[in-house]
Amino acid sequence: MGVSGVGKSTIGNLLSEELSIPFFDGDDFHPEENILKMSKGLALNDNDRLGWLQQLNKLAIEQQSKNGAIIACSALKKIYRDILYNSIKDSTRFVFLDGSFNQIKERINARKGHFMNSELLKSQFDALEIPQNAIKIDISLTPHKIVKLISKEMDNKAEFGLFGLGVMGKSLSRNLANNGFKIALFNRHVKDVEVDVAKNFKNDFEELSTALPFDNIESFVGSLQKPRKIMLMVNAGKIVDYVIEDLLPFLEAGDVLIDGGNSNYHKTKERFDYLKSKGINFVGTGVSGGEEGALKGPSIMPGGNKATYKEVKPYLEAIAAKDANNLPCCTHIGTEGSGHFVKMVHNGIEYVEMQLLAEVYTILKALGNNPDEIANILEGWKESTNSYLLEITIDILRKKEGEGWLVDKIMDKAGNKGTGNWTTITTAQLGVPSTMITSALFARYTSFYKEERIAASKNLEVNNTLDINLTVEDVLKAYQFARLINHYQGFKLIDEASKSYSWNLNLSELARIWTNGCIIRSDLMVELVTTFKSTDNILTDKKVIEQLKTLKPSIKKVVSECILNELATPNLNESISFLNSFVIENSSANLIQAQRDYFGAHTYQLKNDKTNKFYHTDWTKN
Amino acid sequence: MGVSGVGKSTIGNLLSEELSIPFFDGDDFHPEENILKMSKGLALNDNDRLGWLQQLNKLAIEQQSKNGAIIACSALKKIYRDILYNSIKDSTRFVFLDGSFNQIKERINARKGHFMNSELLKSQFDALEIPQNAIKIDISLTPHKIVKLISKEMDNKAEFGLFGLGVMGKSLSRNLANNGFKIALFNRHVKDVEVDVAKNFKNDFEELSTALPFDNIESFVGSLQKPRKIMLMVNAGKIVDYVIEDLLPFLEAGDVLIDGGNSNYHKTKERFDYLKSKGINFVGTGVSGGEEGALKGPSIMPGGNKATYKEVKPYLEAIAAKDANNLPCCTHIGTEGSGHFVKMVHNGIEYVEMQLLAEVYTILKALGNNPDEIANILEGWKESTNSYLLEITIDILRKKEGEGWLVDKIMDKAGNKGTGNWTTITTAQLGVPSTMITSALFARYTSFYKEERIAASKNLEVNNTLDINLTVEDVLKAYQFARLINHYQGFKLIDEASKSYSWNLNLSELARIWTNGCIIRSDLMVELVTTFKSTDNILTDKKVIEQLKTLKPSIKKVVSECILNELATPNLNESISFLNSFVIENSSANLIQAQRDYFGAHTYQLKNDKTNKFYHTDWTKN
Repeated sequence: MGVSGVGKSTIGNLLSEELSIPFFDGDDFHPEENILKMSKGLALNDNDRLGWLQQLNKLAIEQQSKNGAIIACSALKKIYRDILYNSIKDSTRFVFLDGSFNQIKERINARKGHFMNSELLKSQFDALEIPQNAIKIDISLTPHKIVKLISKEMDNKAEFGLFGLGVMGKSLSRNLANNGFKIALFNRHVKDVEVDVAKNFKNDFEELSTALPFDNIESFVGSLQKPRKIMLMVNAGKIVDYVIEDLLPFLEAGDVLIDGGNSNYHKTKERFDYLKSKGINFVGTGVSGGEEGALKGPSIMPGGNKATYKEVKPYLEAIAAKDANNLPCCTHIGTEGSGHFVKMVHNGIEYVEMQLLAEVYTILKALGNNPDEIANILEGWKESTNSYLLEITIDILRKKEGEGWLVDKIMDKAGNKGTGNWTTITTAQLGVPSTMITSALFARYTSFYKEERIAASKNLEVNNTLDINLTVEDVLKAYQFARLINHYQGFKLIDEASKSYSWNLNLSELARIWTNGCIIRSDLMVELVTTFKSTDNILTDKKVIEQLKTLKPSIKKVVSECILNELATPNLNESISFLNSFVIENSSANLIQAQRDYFGAHTYQLKNDKTNKFYHTDWTKN
Repeated sequence: MGVSGVGKSTIGNLLSEELSIPFFDGDDFHPEENILKMSKGLALNDNDRLGWLQQLNKLAIEQQSKNGAIIACSALKKIYRDILYNSIKDSTRFVFLDGSFNQIKERINARKGHFMNSELLKSQFDALEIPQNAIKIDISLTPHKIVKLISKEMDNKAEFGLFGLGVMGKSLSRNLANNGFKIALFNRHVKDVEVDVAKNFKNDFEELSTALPFDNIESFVGSLQKPRKIMLMVNAGKIVDYVIEDLLPFLEAGDVLIDGGNSNYHKTKERFDYLKSKGINFVGTGVSGGEEGALKGPSIMPGGNKATYKEVKPYLEAIAAKDANNLPCCTHIGTEGSGHFVKMVHNGIEYVEMQLLAEVYTILKALGNNPDEIANILEGWKESTNSYLLEITIDILRKKEGEGWLVDKIMDKAGNKGTGNWTTITTAQLGVPSTMITSALFARYTSFYKEERIAASKNLEVNNTLDINLTVEDVLKAYQFARLINHYQGFKLIDEASKSYSWNLNLSELARIWTNGCIIRSDLMVELVTTFKSTDNILTDKKVIEQLKTLKPSIKKVVSECILNELATPNLNESISFLNSFVIENSSANLIQAQRDYFGAHTYQLKNDKTNKFYHTDWTKN
């Protein structure tokens, strides 16, 4: 496209040779009356052009179904171009040959036999609406150079593909585009339900103007530079396998698939092995930050081969949140499965952080505060104990709806989407007592029995005359205590898994990428980056030990008061209950070993027996 | 075998025709000098016989490698018979033709041309040692009838096979034999490690005299009546599949395999389907009672097809414990998987019952009692709260070793063999908050971190100045309260699984088969048989409600005192913590739903919205 005289035919013909696709000069498709009008020096009006442009559009559609074609047409206004690529918008590129009025006037004057006179040129420059998404070419370059430039630009495929445009997929796409990446977008087509999702999404956001939208898998994969990098943002579970099977026929050895959903880490390991057998590289990555984090910068936890990570690193690190030192909250976690494992535990820690705030709210309410007052109290906690979840809880508590607070009206049945129960299952399988995460999961499960809860509360007549001898300071300290135990247990689980699976994880680096972008970012997490530089077990850290000692009287007081007043604070309870079970040289497990030996002949060992021999006793004889 | 003149040759020849195997008259194998001696009316001495008997043994071994044979030989003494079936003992049957002296004397006198004179007969009767395990036949019957009888007895295969002679397998075998069943026993042969296990075991116990011992799978299967019934008592896990594969080539459609180990119920379902495809019936059964229970009467929980159950019912119900009404503690639980499922939960309940006793011991010790004094206190609890586990705990606490009590010397790291963590995993998968079982499992896991516990107890300086304001009566009531919650949760998990898997389980019947034989038998379980007749949820039962109300002040007091005194009582804590979370009309889960909606757009429902619609709010705008 471009005004008359810029060289559309010349460049078009040369390009036709270069790309081995046919060239059509739009002027050859003008009806007689248009040619006559132009030769008389008269400008065509839009009415004159309509049929012509539709004719060219028809030509373009026909050619597209073959190998494509080059068509020359001035196409000065946006409305002309809209007609020209009607229904083939996504597969059409405009090349705008750009020159100054004088430059072109000289060229036209030097030309013979053409029906255009130079006076028309003025009207063309007046009509010209410079296109936004076209390949723009300076006509002062040599035709050879111009053709090379266009051909290079035509080949400008997307660098990164995003598969699945749900809440998280959309936010990540915009994040990638905002970071200057040329991306391809895919969302499936489901009749009447999901139609033109990718196209509509592209049109909704300025930053996606160069993005390539698809609802056809083959075209989507074909639009990507090789080796292709495709991030799957689909629901965890069987769907991931179906999507992989759908993609496989179009992939080549060396391509990279990234699973950014909350997949089970065992499955990620299986998929890694399966795809490896097909020559495809696989990265299972955790992504935390919710809708907003995904858009503005999430915390990203990719696991897989280090070499594969290097290929996707520029994209993932660019879109990740940045820590206090402006380093990306994204790092290569470890080999296959480790990324989804740490994301799973991240979510487990998140369950507890949420539950603890719910329990704080329970206690502060029982102390007579309304949600606004609770929000004000929590506001005061930010100074010493800030976290993203504390901040959003304050927002939530302040949200009014009609008469009263919205939070009070919300149904008290908490949902869960898998990662909480996977963490509990994992902890049971690995033999690690992650009691806080399990307790938080069970609190959600318990909440689900709403009908039975109501019946039980009637039958068992809950104590309603509260006599709570607690200060807000007590509650804050108990909360701080429980959070320390939560973080101890969460990282302990990761550390044990790291040993079991030989992942060799760096807990400090993990804490670092969790200092921003993710849901469990907090001041405490920032402190842990340093703590984990000297130990993998924070219960051996002097500062943490001192904190626990200082806070212990408060958690003991708060929990015993809650038990006596029948308040539901299972996670706070568990924090001190765990510590009381753990910080004990001689536990009562000796009795359990004796019982097991008594009825099952399971044998036992002795405390002061360095041989570690196993003994069996007939306990009935004395 | 039998004295001269009983008809060994006659019967042997007829039997040879009947069974289509050759007959050999042992007398034909006498050396010349023996025949001469006998014809002179002289009795043979043992020295005369040795080479002859060895010759017959060689003959028997040769014939055995073909289709077997019938050999006639007087074989009057045990030492002769031992030579005769040396190295082929298990595949040799003696038929003892039995008649009186006069009866035989008349026969011999009526006979001509035989080299035996009647005086020798007296010496034969003197020498005769009547065999214990032979087929004994009265010679006054007609030869035809005798042959039919022997042939029937020869075909007298074992009714029931037991595969795997570990602690439980041995006890069950003896139990079956004591109940008069003819059984076949198998244990693998592992060079230098497991050699002649089945044979040695058979020889160790009188009741196993008619049992057939094997270390060859084909012979073992071949020794069983069809359809064969084989109970596997091998370690749960992959071994069960290996054993099934080893057995399959020798099984026929209609045979029944019973897995009596603690297999995972998902695996049991898979194995059921797999074996069904081969025409083999499969019963996955829980067996509880430990070594002693298995011998004297365990509680048995078989799951699978009801029709298959009928085939194994006579054996399982005969060996099972009997309840107070003398009914067997064995019942068809439900379809495939259900037997192992309820056994798994049984073990989960058991974990809690054990842990609660360990915690009671912790508190009573902290109150200043030594193990004997604790045993005396528990002795007093029998009247109101007896259970098998309470009883054995008393025995354990009283066991002395050298200076002091054995229990104090046992290493306090509690083991677990899978069912506890499977229950926890199941509870997480099914969305049921079985918090007590999980807490008991985690108490064992925590005990395992002995080194870290010791370090932490030094770093965190446990409170050693106890100030416990509790009576023994408080502790008893807290224990009773926690046991009620444990049984509520355990049966609740079974009830929820029953709904999920459409098992349609009968909780009262389940409680009934747990009133005897199994590890969790108790007075409480006896009460629950009645309770579950009117409800599947004991928290709706008036009597239970009254008990909980009465006991609640004590559990609150005990738990708060333990928290304040830093005693490790995680399971007692969990019992009241759970009830406080459960018995609540409005929980704090509304805040969690708001948080989830805030960061993840997970949406929420409203309490007073009958439409059950889902809402999403932008919480940042107020």
